[in-house]
Amino acid sequence: MSIHDRLKAAGISPQAPQAAAGAFVHAVRTGDLLFLSGHIARRDGKPWRGRLGDDMTTAQGKDAARAVAIDLIGTLHAATGKLESIRRIVKLLVLVNSAPDYTEQHLVANGASELLRAIFGDGGAHARSAMGVAQLPFGSCVEIELIAELEPV
Amino acid sequence: MSIHDRLKAAGISPQAPQAAAGAFVHAVRTGDLLFLSGHIARRDGKPWRGRLGDDMTTAQGKDAARAVAIDLIGTLHAATGKLESIRRIVKLLVLVNSAPDYTEQHLVANGASELLRAIFGDGGAHARSAMGVAQLPFGSCVEIELIAELEPV
Amino acid sequence: MSIHDRLKAAGISPQAPQAAAGAFVHAVRTGDLLFLSGHIARRDGKPWRGRLGDDMTTAQGKDAARAVAIDLIGTLHAATGKLESIRRIVKLLVLVNSAPDYTEQHLVANGASELLRAIFGDGGAHARSAMGVAQLPFGSCVEIELIAELEPV
Repeated sequence: MSIHDRLKAAGISPQAPQAAAGAFVHAVRTGDLLFLSGHIARRDGKPWRGRLGDDMTTAQGKDAARAVAIDLIGTLHAATGKLESIRRIVKLLVLVNSAPDYTEQHLVANGASELLRAIFGDGGAHARSAMGVAQLPFGSCVEIELIAELEPV
Repeated sequence: MSIHDRLKAAGISPQAPQAAAGAFVHAVRTGDLLFLSGHIARRDGKPWRGRLGDDMTTAQGKDAARAVAIDLIGTLHAATGKLESIRRIVKLLVLVNSAPDYTEQHLVANGASELLRAIFGDGGAHARSAMGVAQLPFGSCVEIELIAELEPV
Repeated sequence: MSIHDRLKAAGISPQAPQAAAGAFVHAVRTGDLLFLSGHIARRDGKPWRGRLGDDMTTAQGKDAARAVAIDLIGTLHAATGKLESIRRIVKLLVLVNSAPDYTEQHLVANGASELLRAIFGDGGAHARSAMGVAQLPFGSCVEIELIAELEPV
């Protein structure tokens, strides 16, 4: 199956990102690497507010991370014009808005990692760091930054 | 206007960084990428202590982020010898010392992003992640890490 | 002295990493860069739980960071088959599980930085960011992510 077929099977239609909430851009290519800005979790287009271990469960956090991954795929599509030009998802940095005693950031992060594996196949196997942060912009529950390797121009 | 002219117009004179506060270096080049260490905010040469949402306002945090960007430019200059050899500011990681309910990290980060755009022009348009951290070295209010793309050697 | 000799002198025998605790891989090579996932501190094979400024001292945190660096070297060895193929340790991201008033993350990070300098020599001089996070997976006290530059294939 192609990436396009897998997205379709998953009911995902990549959307171009909203305007950046600040003086930055969503993605920068340098050589064969594409650096994506941190994307915060959104629900119905608005920041998905919450804190794990406080007012959100791990299952909800995992859903939020999956939602971020869908937005990251939208940005990858907007930046490349063609998802097939992505050779590899290289690394994720997964920021989880966490109460002081919440220690399942890795399970939250799996919501993004599993989707990327499912959509990109072997090229979706990535390195990753997950951590619990004190807060995130707009009070969002999860933020994820991504590095991808592209086909040479 | 050249980068040099823009710095002059902004009243900024790039300074070489202080000695690293630890067993690391300020910048490492690999291929055409230059990775800069996290730079903490300083005021009068000393760590700029504070926590956003506690004893600092967003406007003050933005000023601190701008001060970090000036120091990052100093390190870029010291590492390259020539700011014109910087093709692109690729990515910032902006760490904001945040109280648990402070959610304007993106506005703080703009203090750095806007200066880099002003000085480097189109080459200053970068990807970025901003987050609220529990603390920073020396109690500083902001720390920023930067990746730049350089002209090929 | 070779890297192998230095490891032997330090009594370190690189071990292959445990299975990843999630849907990710320990290392991804892209071009000449190798991105390692965040490695949490372990003691006797189990997560090394604790929070700096709360139930751990800076000296203990530094020991934990050194332990992470040993695990990172194990992963570098497993990923490359030959540590001599590592040209440079490029950058560390050092995450320190921190109480709100703990500000010595840079001293904790030195536990990893100093070991990498000792083992890799000039090639071990790296850029670095250190920060205090609200929590880490499994309640571990330290997590470190690493980027290395490899010999061209």
